[in-house]
Amino acid sequence: MIEFCCHCGDRVSLSIPEGDDRQRHVCGGCGAIHYQNPKVVTGCIPEWEDKVLLCRRAIEPRRGYWTLPAGFMENGESSHEGAAREAHEEANARVRITGLYTLFSLPRIDQVYLFFRSRLLDLDFSPGIESLEVSLFSRDEIPWDDLAFQVVYETLRFYYQDRDGDGFRVRSGTIERTGRTSSDYRLQLI
Amino acid sequence: MIEFCCHCGDRVSLSIPEGDDRQRHVCGGCGAIHYQNPKVVTGCIPEWEDKVLLCRRAIEPRRGYWTLPAGFMENGESSHEGAAREAHEEANARVRITGLYTLFSLPRIDQVYLFFRSRLLDLDFSPGIESLEVSLFSRDEIPWDDLAFQVVYETLRFYYQDRDGDGFRVRSGTIERTGRTSSDYRLQLI
Repeated sequence: MIEFCCHCGDRVSLSIPEGDDRQRHVCGGCGAIHYQNPKVVTGCIPEWEDKVLLCRRAIEPRRGYWTLPAGFMENGESSHEGAAREAHEEANARVRITGLYTLFSLPRIDQVYLFFRSRLLDLDFSPGIESLEVSLFSRDEIPWDDLAFQVVYETLRFYYQDRDGDGFRVRSGTIERTGRTSSDYRLQLI
Repeated sequence: MIEFCCHCGDRVSLSIPEGDDRQRHVCGGCGAIHYQNPKVVTGCIPEWEDKVLLCRRAIEPRRGYWTLPAGFMENGESSHEGAAREAHEEANARVRITGLYTLFSLPRIDQVYLFFRSRLLDLDFSPGIESLEVSLFSRDEIPWDDLAFQVVYETLRFYYQDRDGDGFRVRSGTIERTGRTSSDYRLQLI
C-alpha cells in the first residue's frame, strides 16, 4: 500500500489524474503519480535427456513443494537472462535458454509468468539458499500432486503433451482463481 | 528515484539486504525493501484483410511517428486484455486477440514488450486522445522510416516475413542499444 510519496515524502491520496480513467496514488505535495504495474516472474524448464530439474522450496509461499526455478525479473536484464539467473540462484545450475515456452497472466495477483525451455549444461547442481533439494525427474517421477504453483503444473503438463505430440509451441493465456482452494482455477488459452 | 519510504514516509538508503546480491532501496525507519522491477508494455497488431492498423503518436516520446497500439499493462488485467484495451484507447478500435507474437526485452529501459496478433472487428476506428491519426496500411504503404520504436519496426518486419514465408511463429529476444542514435541497436533472438 502506498501512503507516502517516494520522491518528496508527502502524503499521497487516490484520485483520477486528468486524461486517465482509473484511480492512482497522487502526491499532495509534488503531484507525482505513482503507477503500480504487474511484475514479471521469469523461469525455465532445465532439460537433461528425458528429465527436467525441479527445486523443492525452502521459503514461503508453498515451502516444501516442488517448482521450476523462477523468480522476479530484475531491472537491467532480459527476461531469458533472468530465467537463467534464477536457475543458478535456486539450483546452482547452468542452463542455456533455448526459447520461450509459456506466458501466463495472473491478474488476481498482478503477475505475468514466463517460462523458457532450456538445456542443463552439466550435472553439477545443488540446492541454492531458497531450495531444500534439487533433483531431476522423468515424467513418471514428477511429484504432480506436490507442485508449488498452478503455472508450474500447467507448464509441465503442456511440456509433456507437446513432447509426445506434434512438437513444442508457445502457449499463452490467463489463469484465474475460481474458488477458495489452490486447485480451483481456470486456465484460458488465447 | 526513490528517496522516501512509501509505507512510513521515512528516508530510504541503498544497501544490500541479507540474502540478496544487489543494492535495494531500504527504509531506515520501518525496514521495508523497495524493489524496482521491469514494466510490461503490451500491444497488438490489428489486422484487416492485408492491412494493419497504425497510430500516429500525439504524445512524447516520438510524437508524430507511427506505432502499433501499445501501452503499460495495468494491474488486474491479463497481458492480452491490456493489448486490446490499448487498441481501444489509442484508436477506438475493437479487436479480438488471436495469439502472442513477439516478446522483446529492453534491459536498458527496464521494459518487456509484448505484441499480440489480433483481428480488427470493424472499420469504426478513430484517433484516441494519444493519437493524431489512425489508419490502415498495406505492407507497401507502411511508413517504415517513420515508425516510433525499434520494437514496432522489428515486430512488423517479422510479421511480413512470416506472412510471406512458412507461417507465424512467436519470436522472443533482446533489443540492446549499440550507439547514440535510435537506429544503433541490435536485436538478439533466442
